[in-house]
Amino acid sequence: MEQQQDQTQDEKPNPPPAQATLHEVRTAENSAAYLLPKLQSMKEAKPQLALLDVGAGSGTISVSFAKLIPGGHVTGIDLNPNILPRARAVAEMAGVKNIDFQQGSVYQLPFADETFDVTFCHQVLIHIGNPWDALREMLRVTKRGGVVAAREGDYESECVWPELPELAKFHKLMAGLMRSGGGTPNAGRQLLSWALKAGVEPSQVTLSYSPLSYDTPSRRQTCSRGLCEQLRGGPMREKAIKFGLATEGDFEGMTKAWEEWAKRDDASLAMLNGEILVQK
Amino acid sequence: MEQQQDQTQDEKPNPPPAQATLHEVRTAENSAAYLLPKLQSMKEAKPQLALLDVGAGSGTISVSFAKLIPGGHVTGIDLNPNILPRARAVAEMAGVKNIDFQQGSVYQLPFADETFDVTFCHQVLIHIGNPWDALREMLRVTKRGGVVAAREGDYESECVWPELPELAKFHKLMAGLMRSGGGTPNAGRQLLSWALKAGVEPSQVTLSYSPLSYDTPSRRQTCSRGLCEQLRGGPMREKAIKFGLATEGDFEGMTKAWEEWAKRDDASLAMLNGEILVQK
Repeated sequence: MEQQQDQTQDEKPNPPPAQATLHEVRTAENSAAYLLPKLQSMKEAKPQLALLDVGAGSGTISVSFAKLIPGGHVTGIDLNPNILPRARAVAEMAGVKNIDFQQGSVYQLPFADETFDVTFCHQVLIHIGNPWDALREMLRVTKRGGVVAAREGDYESECVWPELPELAKFHKLMAGLMRSGGGTPNAGRQLLSWALKAGVEPSQVTLSYSPLSYDTPSRRQTCSRGLCEQLRGGPMREKAIKFGLATEGDFEGMTKAWEEWAKRDDASLAMLNGEILVQK
Repeated sequence: MEQQQDQTQDEKPNPPPAQATLHEVRTAENSAAYLLPKLQSMKEAKPQLALLDVGAGSGTISVSFAKLIPGGHVTGIDLNPNILPRARAVAEMAGVKNIDFQQGSVYQLPFADETFDVTFCHQVLIHIGNPWDALREMLRVTKRGGVVAAREGDYESECVWPELPELAKFHKLMAGLMRSGGGTPNAGRQLLSWALKAGVEPSQVTLSYSPLSYDTPSRRQTCSRGLCEQLRGGPMREKAIKFGLATEGDFEGMTKAWEEWAKRDDASLAMLNGEILVQK
């Protein structure tokens, strides 16, 4: 549900972008829990860790990594230069100094070989056409003994209740948008195969799965508000209309359905994410 | 993938049943993690907790609960009387004494009102026609101040990679078998709605989601071996053939596919489970 690798975005710099409600609640704790024990043991051995967050977007995950490695440094990159001022503002608001953000593509990372101890991405490979090339590039900039970590959604595992017809239409639209941009809606289950295609040996990689879920009244509200914001305006809506994947009327129906969903006491949404940790 | 509520089962008493490979690895730790913090705090307040495990099957979860509440007592019930000797053997092998198993239906629990502090089930409601009635009955036998806990799979969220055609056929067969028995393949996402239908107030219930995953070489082997055992014999195979849902040839093809799947370095299987904790 995010488009970090999308150059067509045109947000204003510092205010939160249209997808902020859903993206800016992300932290290392809720989006990279599978990496944290490894990060902790690496930090104990060497406090000056260098961490790269690829497709950093608004930078909330990058900032929480920076807090976790106060003796180290975090670099966040994103293909979209318009999101960088927002990421810098997020870091400033958090009082985090050991961080910088720059523009760059995951296919051609602007760093020398073996620069980082940890190279991380979250919901990036799901949106791009050659995720194995991206992983190979992430491996290139990672030091020997370092790790590459990626967490990607599996949109086909999504559970939504109640099953309102307009929510099914929304699901289909999102999958269509991902595919039209060259992405892979069921990325989560393919992540391990992509790592192997990037040249990783099976013994180097650990796979796990974890849920993203909106399962409490307050999380339901956040989910509905975030999706309705994206349905009312922003790059997702523009792209869907441009590609003929949905009409203005469709957007109105889907927005009403998400508002109705959030009011239901029995409503929830959950999805699996695949996670890989590659030891270089 | 289990049929604990199925009276047509006809296993021999003490040897592991056909589904043992997948069922007997289950413990409170890997199948009821959402309940454990609550169980711990209840135990600190009152060590003599009475816990009911509904649809206990081979009893491995019941036995691990009994170890967690050494000052308390666990009762395991199952509709299938033929599984009870196996459950008793599992308890004996584990050296657990504070436990007993008996036959009984979740629709008519053979206990007085307000007998248990904790009433639990795992992969039971997914197989039955009126899960809200089962939950109402579980609430009846639970003391005021106690909890009802249930964890149910959402088979429609299943992620399998690689997507071999015979595995897709298997998935469809399993969903068909659940439906033919009155079950609900997407139980996980409906669990909260069933609790509300059973008369639970929204403020009494906490919903969460967690994955079941076979994502390491050894877990892949376990999954494949367990599914192949069920495909080669046992109640699932008998029922599928009886109901005309699959032929002998289909079973051969599906068995080969799961064996091939387990050999693949890029293979994994994951599924979401819904979990509810109801405070009475």
